[in-house]
Amino acid sequence: MKPYILVTNDDGVNAPGILTLIKQMMKLGDVLVVAPDVPRSGQSSAVTVNNPIHAQLIEKKLGLTRYSCNGTPADCVKLAIDDLAERKPDLVVSGVNHGSNASVNVIYSGTMGATLEGCLHGVPSIGFSLSDHSMQADFSYLEPILSKIAEKTLHHGLPEKVCLNVNAPIGPIKGVQIVRQCRGQWTREFEKRTNPHGKDYYWLTGFFENFEPTAKDTDEWVLANGYVSVVPVSIDMTAHKAMEELKKWNL
Amino acid sequence: MKPYILVTNDDGVNAPGILTLIKQMMKLGDVLVVAPDVPRSGQSSAVTVNNPIHAQLIEKKLGLTRYSCNGTPADCVKLAIDDLAERKPDLVVSGVNHGSNASVNVIYSGTMGATLEGCLHGVPSIGFSLSDHSMQADFSYLEPILSKIAEKTLHHGLPEKVCLNVNAPIGPIKGVQIVRQCRGQWTREFEKRTNPHGKDYYWLTGFFENFEPTAKDTDEWVLANGYVSVVPVSIDMTAHKAMEELKKWNL
Repeated sequence: MKPYILVTNDDGVNAPGILTLIKQMMKLGDVLVVAPDVPRSGQSSAVTVNNPIHAQLIEKKLGLTRYSCNGTPADCVKLAIDDLAERKPDLVVSGVNHGSNASVNVIYSGTMGATLEGCLHGVPSIGFSLSDHSMQADFSYLEPILSKIAEKTLHHGLPEKVCLNVNAPIGPIKGVQIVRQCRGQWTREFEKRTNPHGKDYYWLTGFFENFEPTAKDTDEWVLANGYVSVVPVSIDMTAHKAMEELKKWNL
Repeated sequence: MKPYILVTNDDGVNAPGILTLIKQMMKLGDVLVVAPDVPRSGQSSAVTVNNPIHAQLIEKKLGLTRYSCNGTPADCVKLAIDDLAERKPDLVVSGVNHGSNASVNVIYSGTMGATLEGCLHGVPSIGFSLSDHSMQADFSYLEPILSKIAEKTLHHGLPEKVCLNVNAPIGPIKGVQIVRQCRGQWTREFEKRTNPHGKDYYWLTGFFENFEPTAKDTDEWVLANGYVSVVPVSIDMTAHKAMEELKKWNL
């Protein structure tokens, strides 16, 4: 039986990045797409608890079924696995995101929220992102990388509770590196403005500060040097090493 | 100087849980509250990128300043630290959430999204939750626990990149245990309905499945046995142990 691959993203069901990903995944298996009807960037693992969710079938042909959904990226994966899929997918892929999800961006990313969700459901899952926010970004040179990483993941599977955060630099690409999440932080995150009625409001913006710009084993470093970064991401968020220290507090 | 404590939550600025937390924190220091204007459960670390954010001052008296904000819990912490706070807070506390954030709920929780955000900004941060969804929940027996854990955190600090996920059972409480995030998953997550016009829609609901119900070192186990669970949570999501395995794939 051909692999059954669930594709989603956070930029919306018609974004160029997801269309690139669908095309590559159709070479590897049967594809089910369930993706947000509108852009849902920065949604992290948010879920919709106070509103109903609906899914609209927009295309069905041999090897490809596409739904648009009014939920978050995580909702899309939940709904796909729980109800829309013919069977449990063999692989969940999310993206290709228009913009980097390296370093701490993994925490805010809807692309990665969907990826974590696939992993929580026990399906090998990969989030793909390109370090270019433009809707006119060129994704073509990424095509062999998308196929190769997806194919290897289908072949090897992934360790339990682990998914992949894959980020690509603006091409050309020198290769692929397995690295860790870089330490960093967003700073000066708001632009304050005043509306015509004299009331202040804010736009979220900001600057990324890399805390370890010379560390070659980080996603930020390899991206800045022309490599695709692959970070294995854990859905177990326990800081295991900190447990002994806390036990000394006598809480 | 008295400690300066930022308080937020995801149930909204007037929820009983946050009022309990504010009261206890005012015993320990000067309190700044920046919390969502409406309930924002299940928001994870979502941020608002496509709409402006505003904050409304609702109370200012000696030792307490309160703002209501139209952003997510993570937005509230960002805005507080970036603009509204007089200085960098010594502690961020989020909650007390109406409902458990144990096991995989840490990933979906807006309470924990705010806590991670404090941690990302280098501030010792704690999320508090009670295993009772009711808005009439009794929080009074938690008061000494909230103070004690906050006080110990102010005293000891926390390891870099680590925050705390504290969950309390419905009382009485036998004690506090340092534990790890239990393995588990939500299943049968949607209730499908048909609207008056014949179109299907879904409500997110579901059942929590505990994959290791007899493991005594997990948050779920200690909660089920009358203890408060304290899980140290890492903002480094790298699955470090998986890196060697992936390197063998020759990507």
